Amino acid sequence: MNKITVTGFNGVPPFAQGLVRDLRVRWALEEAGLPYDVDLIAVGERKSDAYRRKHPFGLVPALAADEMALFESGAILYLIAEQSEALMPSDKRGRAHTLVWMFAALNTVEPSVNNLSVMDLQHGEEPWAKLRRPSVVEAVKVRLDALAVWLDGRDYLLDRFTAADILMTTVLRLIRHTDLVAQSAVLDAYVKRCEARPTFQKALRDQLADYASPVPVPA
Amino acid sequence: MNKITVTGFNGVPPFAQGLVRDLRVRWALEEAGLPYDVDLIAVGERKSDAYRRKHPFGLVPALAADEMALFESGAILYLIAEQSEALMPSDKRGRAHTLVWMFAALNTVEPSVNNLSVMDLQHGEEPWAKLRRPSVVEAVKVRLDALAVWLDGRDYLLDRFTAADILMTTVLRLIRHTDLVAQSAVLDAYVKRCEARPTFQKALRDQLADYASPVPVPA
Repeated sequence: MNKITVTGFNGVPPFAQGLVRDLRVRWALEEAGLPYDVDLIAVGERKSDAYRRKHPFGLVPALAADEMALFESGAILYLIAEQSEALMPSDKRGRAHTLVWMFAALNTVEPSVNNLSVMDLQHGEEPWAKLRRPSVVEAVKVRLDALAVWLDGRDYLLDRFTAADILMTTVLRLIRHTDLVAQSAVLDAYVKRCEARPTFQKALRDQLADYASPVPVPA
Repeated sequence: MNKITVTGFNGVPPFAQGLVRDLRVRWALEEAGLPYDVDLIAVGERKSDAYRRKHPFGLVPALAADEMALFESGAILYLIAEQSEALMPSDKRGRAHTLVWMFAALNTVEPSVNNLSVMDLQHGEEPWAKLRRPSVVEAVKVRLDALAVWLDGRDYLLDRFTAADILMTTVLRLIRHTDLVAQSAVLDAYVKRCEARPTFQKALRDQLADYASPVPVPA
Protein backbone atom coordinates (compact mmCIF):
# COMPACT_ATOMS: atom_id res chain seq x y z
CA MET A 1 0.00 0.00 0.00
CA ASN A 2 1.24 3.46 -0.94
CA LYS A 3 0.16 6.99 -0.12
CA ILE A 4 -2.18 5.96 2.65
CA THR A 5 -4.62 8.52 4.03
CA VAL A 6 -6.98 7.72 6.91
CA THR A 7 -10.05 9.85 7.55
CA GLY A 8 -10.97 10.67 11.14
CA PHE A 9 -12.81 13.44 13.00
CA ASN A 10 -11.28 16.73 14.14
CA GLY A 11 -13.31 16.53 17.34
CA VAL A 12 -15.94 14.41 19.09
CA PRO A 13 -17.81 14.69 22.43
CA PRO A 14 -15.86 13.42 25.46
CA PHE A 15 -17.87 10.17 25.71
CA ALA A 16 -16.71 9.15 22.22
CA GLN A 17 -13.04 10.06 22.58
CA GLY A 18 -10.88 6.96 22.22
CA LEU A 19 -13.79 4.96 20.78
CA VAL A 20 -14.04 6.25 17.19
CA ARG A 21 -13.23 3.52 14.72
CA ASP A 22 -10.37 5.22 12.85
CA LEU A 23 -8.38 4.15 15.96
CA ARG A 24 -8.47 0.60 14.58
CA VAL A 25 -6.90 1.65 11.32
CA ARG A 26 -4.26 3.85 12.95
CA TRP A 27 -3.31 0.97 15.29
CA ALA A 28 -3.06 -1.51 12.41
CA LEU A 29 -0.89 0.84 10.39
CA GLU A 30 1.41 1.34 13.39
CA GLU A 31 1.71 -2.46 13.78
CA ALA A 32 2.44 -2.83 10.06
CA GLY A 33 4.96 0.02 10.13
CA LEU A 34 3.24 1.70 7.18
CA PRO A 35 3.44 5.51 7.01
CA TYR A 36 0.15 7.36 6.62
CA ASP A 37 -1.47 10.75 6.58
CA VAL A 38 -4.62 11.68 8.44
CA ASP A 39 -7.45 13.66 6.88
CA LEU A 40 -9.59 15.24 9.59
CA ILE A 41 -13.19 16.19 8.96
CA ALA A 42 -15.82 17.76 11.21
CA VAL A 43 -18.49 15.34 12.45
CA GLY A 44 -21.17 17.17 10.47
CA GLU A 45 -19.13 16.98 7.27
CA ARG A 46 -19.58 13.22 7.03
CA LYS A 47 -23.08 13.75 5.66
CA SER A 48 -21.85 15.92 2.78
CA ASP A 49 -22.01 14.73 -0.82
CA ALA A 50 -18.23 15.12 -1.07
CA TYR A 51 -17.64 12.76 1.85
CA ARG A 52 -20.32 10.30 0.72
CA ARG A 53 -18.22 9.76 -2.37
CA LYS A 54 -15.52 8.38 -0.07
CA HIS A 55 -17.92 6.53 2.24
CA PRO A 56 -21.49 5.84 1.02
CA PHE A 57 -22.78 5.57 4.61
CA GLY A 58 -21.04 8.74 5.82
CA LEU A 59 -19.06 7.06 8.60
CA VAL A 60 -15.41 6.92 9.61
CA PRO A 61 -12.94 5.48 8.93
CA ALA A 62 -12.38 5.78 5.23
CA LEU A 63 -8.98 5.03 3.73
CA ALA A 64 -7.39 6.04 0.46
CA ALA A 65 -4.48 3.92 -0.78
CA ASP A 66 -3.14 2.68 -4.09
CA GLU A 67 -5.71 4.89 -5.82
CA MET A 68 -8.51 2.94 -4.13
CA ALA A 69 -11.18 4.48 -1.90
CA LEU A 70 -11.91 1.99 0.88
CA PHE A 71 -14.21 1.97 3.90
CA GLU A 72 -15.31 -0.39 6.71
CA SER A 73 -12.70 -0.88 9.42
CA GLY A 74 -12.92 -4.68 9.09
CA ALA A 75 -12.16 -4.67 5.37
CA ILE A 76 -9.44 -2.05 5.73
CA LEU A 77 -7.70 -4.04 8.46
CA TYR A 78 -7.75 -7.26 6.43
CA LEU A 79 -6.32 -5.47 3.40
CA ILE A 80 -3.56 -3.95 5.53
CA ALA A 81 -2.95 -7.36 7.11
CA GLU A 82 -2.46 -8.90 3.66
CA GLN A 83 0.54 -6.54 3.36
CA SER A 84 2.10 -7.27 6.73
CA GLU A 85 3.01 -10.44 8.58
CA ALA A 86 2.86 -8.35 11.78
CA LEU A 87 -0.94 -8.48 11.49
CA MET A 88 -1.65 -11.92 10.02
CA PRO A 89 0.19 -15.18 9.37
CA SER A 90 0.79 -15.67 5.64
CA ASP A 91 -0.28 -19.34 5.44
CA LYS A 92 -3.76 -20.32 4.29
CA ARG A 93 -4.94 -21.60 7.67
CA GLY A 94 -3.63 -18.55 9.54
CA ARG A 95 -5.28 -16.14 7.13
CA ALA A 96 -8.58 -18.02 7.34
CA HIS A 97 -8.66 -18.01 11.13
CA THR A 98 -7.65 -14.36 11.32
CA LEU A 99 -10.60 -13.48 9.06
CA VAL A 100 -12.94 -15.71 11.10
CA TRP A 101 -12.04 -13.85 14.30
CA MET A 102 -12.23 -10.45 12.59
CA PHE A 103 -15.83 -11.18 11.62
CA ALA A 104 -16.48 -12.67 15.08
CA ALA A 105 -15.38 -9.37 16.64
CA LEU A 106 -17.49 -7.20 14.34
CA ASN A 107 -20.54 -9.35 13.61
CA THR A 108 -20.94 -11.51 16.74
CA VAL A 109 -19.49 -9.50 19.65
CA GLU A 110 -19.78 -5.88 18.54
CA PRO A 111 -23.56 -5.75 17.88
CA SER A 112 -24.59 -6.50 21.48
CA VAL A 113 -21.68 -4.56 22.96
CA ASN A 114 -22.46 -1.57 20.77
CA ASN A 115 -26.13 -1.69 21.73
CA LEU A 116 -25.16 -1.36 25.38
CA SER A 117 -22.64 1.37 24.61
CA VAL A 118 -25.12 3.47 22.61
CA MET A 119 -27.85 2.90 25.20
CA ASP A 120 -25.74 4.01 28.15
CA LEU A 121 -23.77 6.81 26.52
CA GLN A 122 -26.54 8.36 24.42
CA HIS A 123 -29.94 7.23 25.79
CA GLY A 124 -29.29 6.39 29.45
CA GLU A 125 -32.08 8.59 30.82
CA GLU A 126 -34.79 7.52 28.37
CA PRO A 127 -37.63 5.33 29.72
CA TRP A 128 -37.14 2.51 27.18
CA ALA A 129 -33.45 2.26 28.10
CA LYS A 130 -34.22 1.67 31.77
CA LEU A 131 -36.67 -1.10 30.85
CA ARG A 132 -34.42 -2.69 28.25
CA ARG A 133 -31.02 -2.46 29.92
CA PRO A 134 -31.05 -5.74 31.91
CA SER A 135 -31.70 -7.86 28.81
CA VAL A 136 -29.08 -5.97 26.79
CA VAL A 137 -26.54 -6.58 29.55
CA GLU A 138 -27.55 -10.24 29.55
CA ALA A 139 -26.94 -10.45 25.78
CA VAL A 140 -23.50 -8.89 26.24
CA LYS A 141 -22.66 -11.37 29.00
CA VAL A 142 -23.54 -14.32 26.76
CA ARG A 143 -20.96 -13.15 24.23
CA LEU A 144 -18.32 -12.21 26.82
CA ASP A 145 -18.67 -15.55 28.59
CA ALA A 146 -18.08 -17.44 25.34
CA LEU A 147 -15.12 -15.22 24.51
CA ALA A 148 -13.62 -15.74 27.97
CA VAL A 149 -13.87 -19.52 27.54
CA TRP A 150 -12.02 -19.24 24.24
CA LEU A 151 -9.31 -16.91 25.61
CA ASP A 152 -8.71 -18.90 28.79
CA GLY A 153 -5.13 -20.12 28.45
CA ARG A 154 -4.53 -18.01 25.35
CA ASP A 155 -2.77 -14.65 25.07
CA TYR A 156 -4.52 -13.75 21.82
CA LEU A 157 -7.43 -14.96 19.68
CA LEU A 158 -5.03 -16.96 17.52
CA ASP A 159 -1.70 -18.32 18.78
CA ARG A 160 -0.16 -14.87 18.19
CA PHE A 161 -1.27 -11.22 17.95
CA THR A 162 -3.25 -10.46 14.76
CA ALA A 163 -5.54 -7.84 13.25
CA ALA A 164 -8.43 -9.71 14.90
CA ASP A 165 -7.10 -8.66 18.32
CA ILE A 166 -7.18 -5.02 17.23
CA LEU A 167 -10.84 -5.35 16.35
CA MET A 168 -11.79 -7.34 19.46
CA THR A 169 -9.95 -4.97 21.80
CA THR A 170 -11.56 -1.88 20.31
CA VAL A 171 -14.96 -3.60 20.48
CA LEU A 172 -14.50 -4.38 24.18
CA ARG A 173 -13.42 -0.78 24.82
CA LEU A 174 -16.93 0.33 23.80
CA ILE A 175 -18.18 -0.77 27.24
CA ARG A 176 -15.21 0.45 29.29
CA HIS A 177 -17.73 2.61 31.22
CA THR A 178 -19.04 -0.66 32.75
CA ASP A 179 -17.25 -3.37 34.74
CA LEU A 180 -18.47 -6.19 32.48
CA VAL A 181 -15.05 -6.85 30.95
CA ALA A 182 -13.18 -6.34 34.23
CA GLN A 183 -15.43 -8.93 35.92
CA SER A 184 -13.61 -11.58 33.89
CA ALA A 185 -9.96 -11.95 34.84
CA VAL A 186 -9.29 -13.52 31.44
CA LEU A 187 -10.90 -10.71 29.44
CA ASP A 188 -9.46 -8.00 31.66
CA ALA A 189 -5.94 -9.34 31.17
CA TYR A 190 -6.52 -9.76 27.42
CA VAL A 191 -7.61 -6.15 26.87
CA LYS A 192 -4.80 -4.82 29.05
CA ARG A 193 -2.28 -7.00 27.19
CA CYS A 194 -3.40 -5.59 23.83
CA GLU A 195 -3.71 -2.00 25.04
CA ALA A 196 -0.19 -2.15 26.50
CA ARG A 197 1.29 -2.43 23.01
CA PRO A 198 3.25 0.74 22.12
CA THR A 199 1.48 0.75 18.73
CA PHE A 200 -1.90 1.08 20.46
CA GLN A 201 -0.61 3.78 22.77
CA LYS A 202 0.76 5.80 19.86
CA ALA A 203 -2.42 5.42 17.78
CA LEU A 204 -4.60 6.51 20.70
CA ARG A 205 -2.32 9.43 21.58
CA ASP A 206 -2.36 10.64 17.97
CA GLN A 207 -6.13 10.31 17.68
CA LEU A 208 -6.74 12.27 20.89
CA ALA A 209 -4.19 14.91 19.88
CA ASP A 210 -6.14 15.48 16.68
CA TYR A 211 -9.21 16.35 18.77
CA ALA A 212 -7.20 19.08 20.45
CA SER A 213 -6.68 20.86 17.14
CA PRO A 214 -8.19 24.35 16.93
CA VAL A 215 -10.52 23.51 14.01
CA PRO A 216 -14.10 24.50 14.94
CA VAL A 217 -16.46 21.56 15.51
CA PRO A 218 -20.05 21.95 14.24
CA ALA A 219 -22.77 20.63 16.53
CA MET B 1 -12.11 -26.50 -0.81
CA ASN B 2 -12.79 -30.19 -0.34
CA LYS B 3 -15.19 -32.23 1.78
CA ILE B 4 -17.34 -29.27 2.71
CA THR B 5 -19.89 -29.68 5.50
CA VAL B 6 -22.21 -26.85 6.54
CA THR B 7 -23.95 -26.90 9.92
CA GLY B 8 -27.57 -25.76 10.10
CA PHE B 9 -30.60 -26.42 12.31
CA ASN B 10 -33.03 -29.33 11.92
CA GLY B 11 -35.91 -27.02 12.80
CA VAL B 12 -36.64 -23.44 13.87
CA PRO B 13 -39.83 -21.53 14.77
CA PRO B 14 -41.83 -20.24 11.77
CA PHE B 15 -40.68 -16.62 12.24
CA ALA B 16 -37.05 -17.66 11.72
CA GLN B 17 -37.55 -19.95 8.74
CA GLY B 18 -35.69 -18.59 5.72
CA LEU B 19 -33.67 -16.21 7.91
CA VAL B 20 -31.11 -18.50 9.57
CA ARG B 21 -27.61 -17.63 8.44
CA ASP B 22 -26.56 -21.01 7.03
CA LEU B 23 -28.69 -19.89 4.06
CA ARG B 24 -25.86 -17.52 3.13
CA VAL B 25 -23.33 -20.33 2.99
CA ARG B 26 -25.63 -22.69 1.06
CA TRP B 27 -26.33 -19.92 -1.47
CA ALA B 28 -22.62 -19.14 -1.89
CA LEU B 29 -21.77 -22.80 -2.40
CA GLU B 30 -24.53 -23.10 -5.02
CA GLU B 31 -23.10 -20.05 -6.84
CA ALA B 32 -19.60 -21.52 -6.67
CA GLY B 33 -20.81 -24.92 -7.83
CA LEU B 34 -19.07 -26.61 -4.89
CA PRO B 35 -20.65 -29.81 -3.58
CA TYR B 36 -21.35 -29.94 0.16
CA ASP B 37 -22.97 -31.94 2.89
CA VAL B 38 -25.24 -30.52 5.56
CA ASP B 39 -24.95 -31.42 9.23
CA LEU B 40 -28.21 -30.67 11.02
CA ILE B 41 -28.31 -30.00 14.75
CA ALA B 42 -31.17 -29.19 17.09
CA VAL B 43 -31.32 -25.56 18.20
CA GLY B 44 -30.59 -26.57 21.81
CA GLU B 45 -27.54 -28.56 20.75
CA ARG B 46 -25.62 -25.44 19.77
CA LYS B 47 -24.86 -24.79 23.44
CA SER B 48 -23.23 -28.19 23.93
CA ASP B 49 -19.52 -28.54 24.54
CA ALA B 50 -19.24 -30.67 21.40
CA TYR B 51 -20.71 -27.95 19.22
CA ARG B 52 -18.74 -25.18 20.95
CA ARG B 53 -15.62 -26.89 19.70
CA LYS B 54 -16.86 -26.13 16.16
CA HIS B 55 -18.20 -22.67 16.99
CA PRO B 56 -17.02 -20.95 20.20
CA PHE B 57 -20.16 -18.76 20.33
CA GLY B 58 -22.58 -21.63 19.67
CA LEU B 59 -24.16 -20.14 16.56
CA VAL B 60 -24.76 -21.31 13.01
CA PRO B 61 -23.36 -21.55 10.44
CA ALA B 62 -20.17 -23.47 11.01
CA LEU B 63 -18.28 -24.99 8.11
CA ALA B 64 -15.76 -27.79 7.94
CA ALA B 65 -13.51 -27.89 4.86
CA ASP B 66 -9.91 -28.79 4.08
CA GLU B 67 -9.57 -30.05 7.65
CA MET B 68 -10.34 -26.54 8.94
CA ALA B 69 -13.19 -25.70 11.32
CA LEU B 70 -14.55 -22.31 10.29
CA PHE B 71 -17.37 -20.08 11.53
CA GLU B 72 -18.83 -16.61 10.87
CA SER B 73 -20.85 -16.38 7.67
CA GLY B 74 -18.84 -13.36 6.48
CA ALA B 75 -15.50 -15.13 6.78
CA ILE B 76 -16.85 -18.35 5.29
CA LEU B 77 -18.24 -16.50 2.26
CA TYR B 78 -14.97 -14.68 1.62
CA LEU B 79 -13.01 -17.92 1.82
CA ILE B 80 -15.43 -19.60 -0.61
CA ALA B 81 -15.23 -16.53 -2.87
CA GLU B 82 -11.45 -16.84 -2.99
CA GLN B 83 -12.06 -20.23 -4.66
CA SER B 84 -14.63 -19.07 -7.20
CA GLU B 85 -14.74 -16.24 -9.70
CA ALA B 86 -18.55 -16.62 -9.59
CA LEU B 87 -18.47 -14.89 -6.20
CA MET B 88 -15.65 -12.37 -6.50
CA PRO B 89 -13.45 -10.84 -9.22
CA SER B 90 -9.88 -12.14 -8.97
CA ASP B 91 -8.10 -8.79 -9.38
CA LYS B 92 -6.85 -6.85 -6.35
CA ARG B 93 -9.32 -3.99 -6.69
CA GLY B 94 -12.29 -6.32 -7.17
CA ARG B 95 -11.36 -8.42 -4.14
CA ALA B 96 -10.90 -5.31 -2.01
CA HIS B 97 -14.26 -3.83 -2.91
CA THR B 98 -16.04 -7.15 -2.46
CA LEU B 99 -14.63 -7.36 1.07
CA VAL B 100 -15.56 -3.72 1.76
CA TRP B 101 -19.19 -4.42 0.84
CA MET B 102 -19.24 -7.70 2.76
CA PHE B 103 -18.28 -5.84 5.93
CA ALA B 104 -20.69 -3.02 5.04
CA ALA B 105 -23.52 -5.57 4.90
CA LEU B 106 -22.61 -7.22 8.21
CA ASN B 107 -21.17 -4.36 10.28
CA THR B 108 -22.98 -1.26 9.00
CA VAL B 109 -26.38 -2.43 7.72
CA GLU B 110 -27.10 -5.62 9.67
CA PRO B 111 -26.80 -4.24 13.23
CA SER B 112 -29.70 -1.79 12.90
CA VAL B 113 -31.73 -4.12 10.68
CA ASN B 114 -31.21 -7.00 13.10
CA ASN B 115 -32.23 -4.84 16.06
CA LEU B 116 -35.56 -4.16 14.37
CA SER B 117 -35.97 -7.79 13.38
CA VAL B 118 -35.31 -9.11 16.89
CA MET B 119 -37.50 -6.42 18.43
CA ASP B 120 -40.51 -7.14 16.21
CA LEU B 121 -40.21 -10.91 15.98
CA GLN B 122 -39.24 -11.68 19.56
CA HIS B 123 -40.15 -8.70 21.78
CA GLY B 124 -42.96 -6.91 19.93
CA GLU B 125 -45.35 -6.88 22.88
CA GLU B 126 -42.88 -5.71 25.51
CA PRO B 127 -43.24 -2.14 26.85
CA TRP B 128 -39.67 -1.07 25.99
CA ALA B 129 -40.14 -2.21 22.39
CA LYS B 130 -43.17 0.01 21.88
CA LEU B 131 -41.24 3.00 23.24
CA ARG B 132 -38.06 2.27 21.32
CA ARG B 133 -39.43 1.15 17.96
CA PRO B 134 -39.71 4.57 16.23
CA SER B 135 -36.03 5.38 16.78
CA VAL B 136 -34.94 1.88 15.72
CA VAL B 137 -36.95 2.26 12.51
CA GLU B 138 -35.32 5.66 12.00
CA ALA B 139 -31.85 4.11 12.37
CA VAL B 140 -32.76 1.45 9.79
CA LYS B 141 -34.01 4.11 7.39
CA VAL B 142 -30.74 6.03 7.62
CA ARG B 143 -28.87 2.93 6.44
CA LEU B 144 -31.43 1.95 3.79
CA ASP B 145 -31.50 5.47 2.36
CA ALA B 146 -27.72 5.47 1.95
CA LEU B 147 -27.81 2.01 0.41
CA ALA B 148 -30.54 3.06 -2.03
CA VAL B 149 -28.45 6.04 -3.16
CA TRP B 150 -25.54 3.71 -3.83
CA LEU B 151 -27.64 1.12 -5.68
CA ASP B 152 -29.52 3.65 -7.81
CA GLY B 153 -28.45 2.87 -11.36
CA ARG B 154 -26.61 -0.29 -10.28
CA ASP B 155 -27.81 -3.90 -10.48
CA TYR B 156 -25.44 -5.07 -7.74
CA LEU B 157 -23.17 -3.55 -5.07
CA LEU B 158 -20.19 -3.90 -7.40
CA ASP B 159 -20.47 -3.87 -11.20
CA ARG B 160 -21.42 -7.57 -11.09
CA PHE B 161 -22.96 -10.07 -8.63
CA THR B 162 -20.60 -10.98 -5.76
CA ALA B 163 -20.61 -12.61 -2.35
CA ALA B 164 -21.40 -9.16 -0.92
CA ASP B 165 -24.83 -9.30 -2.59
CA ILE B 166 -25.54 -12.61 -0.85
CA LEU B 167 -24.83 -10.98 2.51
CA MET B 168 -26.73 -7.76 1.77
CA THR B 169 -29.78 -9.61 0.43
CA THR B 170 -29.97 -11.92 3.44
CA VAL B 171 -29.55 -8.92 5.75
CA LEU B 172 -32.44 -7.07 4.08
CA ARG B 173 -34.59 -10.22 4.34
CA LEU B 174 -34.41 -9.89 8.14
CA ILE B 175 -37.04 -7.13 7.92
CA ARG B 176 -39.22 -8.68 5.22
CA HIS B 177 -42.09 -8.52 7.77
CA THR B 178 -42.03 -4.72 7.29
CA ASP B 179 -42.44 -2.60 4.15
CA LEU B 180 -39.22 -0.65 4.75
CA VAL B 181 -37.35 -2.26 1.86
CA ALA B 182 -40.37 -2.30 -0.45
CA GLN B 183 -40.84 1.47 0.10
CA SER B 184 -37.70 1.99 -1.99
CA ALA B 185 -38.15 0.97 -5.63
CA VAL B 186 -34.38 0.63 -5.93
CA LEU B 187 -33.99 -1.66 -2.91
CA ASP B 188 -37.10 -3.65 -3.71
CA ALA B 189 -35.83 -4.37 -7.23
CA TYR B 190 -32.37 -5.21 -5.89
CA VAL B 191 -33.60 -7.79 -3.40
CA LYS B 192 -35.97 -9.33 -5.95
CA ARG B 193 -33.16 -9.45 -8.53
CA CYS B 194 -30.90 -11.34 -6.14
CA GLU B 195 -33.64 -13.62 -4.79
CA ALA B 196 -34.63 -14.55 -8.35
CA ARG B 197 -31.33 -16.35 -8.87
CA PRO B 198 -31.87 -20.13 -9.16
CA THR B 199 -28.99 -20.61 -6.71
CA PHE B 200 -30.86 -18.67 -4.02
CA GLN B 201 -34.08 -20.54 -4.74
CA LYS B 202 -32.34 -23.89 -4.41
CA ALA B 203 -30.52 -22.94 -1.21
CA LEU B 204 -33.74 -21.68 0.38
CA ARG B 205 -35.72 -24.74 -0.74
CA ASP B 206 -33.07 -27.06 0.68
CA GLN B 207 -32.90 -25.19 3.98
CA LEU B 208 -36.68 -25.25 4.43
CA ALA B 209 -36.84 -28.92 3.44
CA ASP B 210 -34.39 -29.70 6.22
CA TYR B 211 -36.81 -28.19 8.74
CA ALA B 212 -39.44 -30.67 7.54
CA SER B 213 -37.29 -33.60 8.62
CA PRO B 214 -38.81 -35.79 11.33
CA VAL B 215 -36.02 -35.16 13.85
CA PRO B 216 -37.53 -33.95 17.15
CA VAL B 217 -36.84 -30.30 17.97
CA PRO B 218 -36.14 -29.41 21.60
CA ALA B 219 -37.77 -26.24 22.87
